[in-house]
Amino acid sequence: MSTYHAPLQEMTFVLNELAGLAQVASLPGFEEASPDTVNAILEEAAKFATNVLDPLNSPGDREGATRLPDGSVKTPAGFKDAYQQFIQNGWNGLTKNPEYGGQGLPQLVATPVEEMWHSANMAFDLCPLLTQGAIEALELCATPEQKATFLPKMVDGTWTGTMNLTEPQAGSDLAAVRTRAVPQGDGTYKLYGQKIFITYGEHDYTENIIHMVLARTPNAPEGVKGISLFIVPKYLVNADGSLGARNDVQCVSLEHKLGIHASPTAVLAYGDQGGAVGYLIGAENRGLEYMFIMMNLARFSVGVEGVGISERAYQRAVAYARDRVQGKPIGLDKGSGTIIEHPDIRRMLMTMRAYTEAMRAVAYVTAAAMDNARRHSDSDARKRHQVFVDLMIPIVKGWSTEIAQEVTYLGVQVHGGMGFIEETGAAQHYRDARIITIYEGTTGIQANDLIGRKTARDGGATARAVSDDIDKVAARLASHREPELRSIGVRLAAATAALQGTIDWLVPEYGKNVRVAHAAAVPYLKLWGLLVGGWQLGRGALIASERLSAGEGDGDFLRAKITTARFYAEALLPQAEALAQSITEGSDAALALTADQF
Amino acid sequence: MSTYHAPLQEMTFVLNELAGLAQVASLPGFEEASPDTVNAILEEAAKFATNVLDPLNSPGDREGATRLPDGSVKTPAGFKDAYQQFIQNGWNGLTKNPEYGGQGLPQLVATPVEEMWHSANMAFDLCPLLTQGAIEALELCATPEQKATFLPKMVDGTWTGTMNLTEPQAGSDLAAVRTRAVPQGDGTYKLYGQKIFITYGEHDYTENIIHMVLARTPNAPEGVKGISLFIVPKYLVNADGSLGARNDVQCVSLEHKLGIHASPTAVLAYGDQGGAVGYLIGAENRGLEYMFIMMNLARFSVGVEGVGISERAYQRAVAYARDRVQGKPIGLDKGSGTIIEHPDIRRMLMTMRAYTEAMRAVAYVTAAAMDNARRHSDSDARKRHQVFVDLMIPIVKGWSTEIAQEVTYLGVQVHGGMGFIEETGAAQHYRDARIITIYEGTTGIQANDLIGRKTARDGGATARAVSDDIDKVAARLASHREPELRSIGVRLAAATAALQGTIDWLVPEYGKNVRVAHAAAVPYLKLWGLLVGGWQLGRGALIASERLSAGEGDGDFLRAKITTARFYAEALLPQAEALAQSITEGSDAALALTADQF
Repeated sequence: MSTYHAPLQEMTFVLNELAGLAQVASLPGFEEASPDTVNAILEEAAKFATNVLDPLNSPGDREGATRLPDGSVKTPAGFKDAYQQFIQNGWNGLTKNPEYGGQGLPQLVATPVEEMWHSANMAFDLCPLLTQGAIEALELCATPEQKATFLPKMVDGTWTGTMNLTEPQAGSDLAAVRTRAVPQGDGTYKLYGQKIFITYGEHDYTENIIHMVLARTPNAPEGVKGISLFIVPKYLVNADGSLGARNDVQCVSLEHKLGIHASPTAVLAYGDQGGAVGYLIGAENRGLEYMFIMMNLARFSVGVEGVGISERAYQRAVAYARDRVQGKPIGLDKGSGTIIEHPDIRRMLMTMRAYTEAMRAVAYVTAAAMDNARRHSDSDARKRHQVFVDLMIPIVKGWSTEIAQEVTYLGVQVHGGMGFIEETGAAQHYRDARIITIYEGTTGIQANDLIGRKTARDGGATARAVSDDIDKVAARLASHREPELRSIGVRLAAATAALQGTIDWLVPEYGKNVRVAHAAAVPYLKLWGLLVGGWQLGRGALIASERLSAGEGDGDFLRAKITTARFYAEALLPQAEALAQSITEGSDAALALTADQF
Repeated sequence: MSTYHAPLQEMTFVLNELAGLAQVASLPGFEEASPDTVNAILEEAAKFATNVLDPLNSPGDREGATRLPDGSVKTPAGFKDAYQQFIQNGWNGLTKNPEYGGQGLPQLVATPVEEMWHSANMAFDLCPLLTQGAIEALELCATPEQKATFLPKMVDGTWTGTMNLTEPQAGSDLAAVRTRAVPQGDGTYKLYGQKIFITYGEHDYTENIIHMVLARTPNAPEGVKGISLFIVPKYLVNADGSLGARNDVQCVSLEHKLGIHASPTAVLAYGDQGGAVGYLIGAENRGLEYMFIMMNLARFSVGVEGVGISERAYQRAVAYARDRVQGKPIGLDKGSGTIIEHPDIRRMLMTMRAYTEAMRAVAYVTAAAMDNARRHSDSDARKRHQVFVDLMIPIVKGWSTEIAQEVTYLGVQVHGGMGFIEETGAAQHYRDARIITIYEGTTGIQANDLIGRKTARDGGATARAVSDDIDKVAARLASHREPELRSIGVRLAAATAALQGTIDWLVPEYGKNVRVAHAAAVPYLKLWGLLVGGWQLGRGALIASERLSAGEGDGDFLRAKITTARFYAEALLPQAEALAQSITEGSDAALALTADQF
């Protein structure tokens, strides 16, 4: 069996060389993020991931979460204890406001840590991930009293949080939310309705669960402009902070899912026994706006899930390929006899590796921009970074999650017949990964955001500016003295040109034929992801080459960075032109049948 | 819930217009395959698939097959009864030799029928599929006495058959088989060893199971040249045909798999109680050769599984998309409000549809060539067809199974959050499909066959001849009077040129750098599949256009054929050039790391 080991050398390279940790640590309020502190955090997180979370992943999948007849939910053996260790070690509040007990570290530092949790046990980490979303909503929009009541215990993990958006008729379309919130005249509301797909909506980790719930007040406007956000605690909280009465919210069932079995996905019934007490957050009818504020972080985190689960699948595949003896390696006189010698296995492992490194670099660079957008001392710089973040969020979410499907697919394939057998573990990654292109907005939703708000709205200005930056890196690579780097540069330049052509097509098409533009949205998102992945690997290759020339660093590691970037450029980047052609020439035909002809 | 309906209009179009059923029916021995008979067969099969097999698919997945403490295996409720109906209706012997009770129909007629079984219930059909492999081995290689003893009851389905190749240390590499067969001096052998991954290795459908087992005799040569093939019945058969003693073969466990839960995958122990009685088939040490004879048919059938499960996933996704109300369709003033109006959903459905039609056409055309290779009156024609079949088998198997992953993936995605919930059914197709790129030779094994025996061995002659045929179709399309067809032609010509470039690269590379050639094998296979799919859809578009001009046929259906072919050409075929570039420029880097650098 393969054991997860955090790829610390690679993470550190990306943090320092590509994402600019030193610059982020120089931002106001991030002084704590010194190299030594960050290294210590990563090493401790790596141990926790390897020793506590990873060993529970497979048993947790087999046992799953169970709803008991009384409506309570039992998580798999060991999970509750792991959660207690997790919060006692302070992992819950890494980036949270020190005012409420958090450690106030940059998102950039939290990102590799989150990646480790997702690698080791994605089903476990969904609980802190959702709590983080709830904390974000409260911090941004709640009253001082609400913050004082809920935030300290949510930041330290004594209580967890959930996000209650979906209803049976309201999935991607939150305009259809029907849960009702009736004001009681005392500043509180009573909520009535059913929410589905609520991750960790019920569990046994903590004494209380704080639900963030979208609902409509009486006479609220139709559609998305009539949705408000409420706090609905599982147990009411007394003035002294102690727990009061059980609130009228019940877990009525758990979903039977393809993956993430250890994570309870609840159907929650509000108000069946008279009304669930809720507290309005911010102003009435502005709930969706608040949700979108925290959604950006949640979407980023789901993208990081894509990185984490890909890394885990890659490590498991490498371990199997090193161990499994089968067949004579073609064209080798001798060798270990293990399947890692087979060319096709090599191609699969290189594909998994190159994509995972690319996704990681893109995610960490985006995290650094998030920190700069919040904390940079110069307001123009903050804006500039925010514009980049806005462009990148749908890409990090949409592309990394789609690529994680391919990587976990290859992870199964490397195992051959054993990949289809559940005990091997490869199939679990494949199943677990399948949700991430769906929740927090499907790939289609991300892509619609990317073509509309992020590309067409400013006439393609941001998209072109970023692609110009990529082109500069491509030019440096293409004129490099080393042939490997030149090869990367040539392909990166071609892919950038392909993207620029699609931007030139998309912006007017969005005005003229908005349906055709939307039919192009997902391939456009995939093209962006492919290209920004090549961009960051190209930057990494340039830096690795400099280090090697200077005689610095671990030569073996740095040479592997260059080779991996070259594989990405030569074997994967050619897809860019195919995607561009499919976008500009294949989107019309996608709409050419009538609905009846299907 | 979606109900499976066999796409009879589409199947009939492909059978008649693309695969040339009339010509196949004119071959000696196939006189029975008149249009009326074939239509009646397809209609009856469609009813059986819809009414008997499809309703059992989801319950069968949930219940799974169970091994009882006595080593027997209980299949899910309803499966045994469905099997009895299946054989009573004569479905087991469709293509089998009339001498043993079969109906002697062409493979071309059996192919749509098989497709229906796979669409409706892949786990069920694996039993007849494996029996068919065993029948094939016996018919080709067994003695008249062996045939008389086993074939009639296997052809009518009274007994089932299995193929026992894999052992824990011998998966893709059958040279490593260790099961021993010791001659007893009376013409029989006793077998000792363990076989794994035996599909329907134990079950409760029938009174007997006839295992085909690869084993080594004492002093047999090392490697693949020392493997023999044995018949090992679960119950010995007396001279009068009645069942005798229980043989020494036991099911010691069933695998816990990602999918096809209703199909028992057994670990079989031979000879734990003194030796399992076995009968040699053909000559000693020629077992692998015999296995490969029947393997071709088995590989073809697994390719058809890819078609079948893709069709089912497509139908389920269309049904959901027609039904699910969500969001406002972009750019439409009014509409049904269902998600089939959304451009991105359209693109997903079109992708599923176009790939499925392409795979089907390729499979049926190959089936027709199989019939011609066996039955054509002219020996040169037989040879020519066989050469085409030999090229196509790894493509039908490798490409259709890989594409089925993408199609079932999209099937889940169309369902959004509901796709991740098992009760919806989309996830089952995704899980079930996952085995088909693995069993009967992984995609890597198919691709190695394609680059070696099927391309490099004749210096690329066959590959070039077929690509020239494709080019001719492309030229006809490119000069067509209708713009839709011209668009298909232009893209098909570009894709053909891309393939020709890779053949020119591959043939010498196979001689010079065999490892690099093998690193290119899977993308080369995918390029072939993509292109032959476009070829057959292009042929279909030409024929549909002729019919429309002549005022014949169902206009709506024929126009949809053309539009689907155009979508394939404009949105999917552009991948050809990316694959070609990845093959010729990206295969070296796949091998550039040392094993330690992973």
